[in-house]
Amino acid sequence: MTTKRLLRALGGEAVWPPPVWLMRQAGRYLPEFRAMRAQADFITRCMTPDIATELTLQPIRRFGMDGAILFSDILILPWAMGQSLHFVDGTGPVLEPIRSRADLARLDPRRVVERTAPVMEALRRLRAALDAPAGVGVAPGGGTTLIGFAGAPFTVACYMVDGGGSREFAHTRLMAYSEPVLFERLMALLIHSTADMLCAQIEAGAEAVMLFDSWAGLLPPGEFARHVIAPARAIVQAVHASYPEIPVIGFPRLGGVSVGRYATLTGVQAVGLDTGVDLEVASTLLPTGITTQGNLDPLALLAGGRSLADAIEAIRTVVRGRPHVFNLGHGVLPQTPPEHVAALVEAVRHA
Amino acid sequence: MTTKRLLRALGGEAVWPPPVWLMRQAGRYLPEFRAMRAQADFITRCMTPDIATELTLQPIRRFGMDGAILFSDILILPWAMGQSLHFVDGTGPVLEPIRSRADLARLDPRRVVERTAPVMEALRRLRAALDAPAGVGVAPGGGTTLIGFAGAPFTVACYMVDGGGSREFAHTRLMAYSEPVLFERLMALLIHSTADMLCAQIEAGAEAVMLFDSWAGLLPPGEFARHVIAPARAIVQAVHASYPEIPVIGFPRLGGVSVGRYATLTGVQAVGLDTGVDLEVASTLLPTGITTQGNLDPLALLAGGRSLADAIEAIRTVVRGRPHVFNLGHGVLPQTPPEHVAALVEAVRHA
Repeated sequence: MTTKRLLRALGGEAVWPPPVWLMRQAGRYLPEFRAMRAQADFITRCMTPDIATELTLQPIRRFGMDGAILFSDILILPWAMGQSLHFVDGTGPVLEPIRSRADLARLDPRRVVERTAPVMEALRRLRAALDAPAGVGVAPGGGTTLIGFAGAPFTVACYMVDGGGSREFAHTRLMAYSEPVLFERLMALLIHSTADMLCAQIEAGAEAVMLFDSWAGLLPPGEFARHVIAPARAIVQAVHASYPEIPVIGFPRLGGVSVGRYATLTGVQAVGLDTGVDLEVASTLLPTGITTQGNLDPLALLAGGRSLADAIEAIRTVVRGRPHVFNLGHGVLPQTPPEHVAALVEAVRHA
Repeated sequence: MTTKRLLRALGGEAVWPPPVWLMRQAGRYLPEFRAMRAQADFITRCMTPDIATELTLQPIRRFGMDGAILFSDILILPWAMGQSLHFVDGTGPVLEPIRSRADLARLDPRRVVERTAPVMEALRRLRAALDAPAGVGVAPGGGTTLIGFAGAPFTVACYMVDGGGSREFAHTRLMAYSEPVLFERLMALLIHSTADMLCAQIEAGAEAVMLFDSWAGLLPPGEFARHVIAPARAIVQAVHASYPEIPVIGFPRLGGVSVGRYATLTGVQAVGLDTGVDLEVASTLLPTGITTQGNLDPLALLAGGRSLADAIEAIRTVVRGRPHVFNLGHGVLPQTPPEHVAALVEAVRHA
């Protein structure tokens, strides 16, 4: 069996044309997604294997991407540890904030395996559906790779401590400065359970995993080393201790000039680059041979037409001859026309 | 008369200890600011020379910073061109969005000089107050430098087109892709009137000017070159055509690895660095001799104590021997205790 093209690229091969998938490719821009969304709330969608499987596969059926990323959420981990979580339309996630040792003590990491069992069941079904003869995973040259993921500890801590989305995550960052012992305990808990959860995802069928650190860019260099790089390194080491062949994609969003240090010190196989990153400049900071992933502007995808074609070609030109996974720099926007996604996949795969 | 220390640093001299001022140093964290805030709405505060002068000087009286930045707002320019603007508590600015040629045609840049006359009057009074014998500008070694500013065209366009604050500024970025002619007309209008307004500020007494591009980091490299670097270069050239000796500080916030290209191509004398920037790595990308400004974490200032002392010392260690202006990477947070600001100024000025 041919090795899947996405896995070859994550292994450091300059696959051409580059494999492609999109962050939030299973999402509200698809009418079939919106139809299922009406039937179940967010946590139910994540926790019902039938639904999570179907939502994950919808974009693969339509567009045949090289990667299928599990439909789930980075906040499933704190939810599984017992933190209260609900999603409010228009506001996003709302959690009962963790601000004290007592709050932290109420979390129970031993519940994670049991409570995330439906996620693992979804992964088993997904892998079977993708890899079956005449299955859904029809990406050219070996089929579609199943990608698991987790939020990185700092970003998950941001939601856990602040209690929801925020521009500043001031409670979290203040705790890191003012109550370092408490914050380090929370981070240690997250590092350990994130590594466990990723290993469980791999055991259930994930062929690669991605670590999303959406708020890494909020931190100054010393804190970035402590709360972004060190946890990612610990998680990569734990995953590779059990699954040395599984590639890890790290995404230190808005990490700016620190992306080189992140890539070098964490041991990830690939680094996700947000929209603002100049690939040519970034490659002077990155270790040789590392795979890059990203970084098309989601607004260019929304715009479509000539802007989209130009933006795709600009990235293709820079990454030619290097290991790269084509993706966006941020998630697909809900108002994106699905035909623009079809046009993207076709344009990326143009010889 | 001794040259002011801030102006020496902006001129490329490795002044030690580094001069210091803080973004949003005139702000809600000061009780005397909150007291005046109750008396007048935001635009009235900006447009009444007595009030704008007093608010600008409050932190100088307390802490004796090396720089006094005019109390004003980047949205005064669109307001002066006739765009409807009001500030809603808790929500921020609300503008009637510019989305069409007809909307754009209603703006009148010829009104800017007349409508911003009170701002220029505030600058004249400020310069007199700072430089008078026994005046307010008591920073050691030459006194306090008066800093004017404007929003950079892309960031101002974000608010003008989206009609207020936003995480994505999707309307603006979509217009840039989908209606490039309309967007370029708006940008041309902003480039021209921003340059004029900065020249008027200098004429009125500003000794240095800063260009805030808060949302520069949203743009991919091609768009960053077109909508961030090119406008900044045009504005720097226009300012220097009339005032070649006035330093310009450019702040391409979250510009990441593109900060080097920005600094090299725009011709600014100093570059502002946000909190996430690793100064050591950034300096490998920046042109030799350029002045840096920033980039202490506002959360470290909020935390105070040991965290603050360590964060200050980390920056002092890296910038020693280089031209640097000590500042935050983002604005002072409203909940910051004023005594932490006093501690900061003292710690920075420690020999």
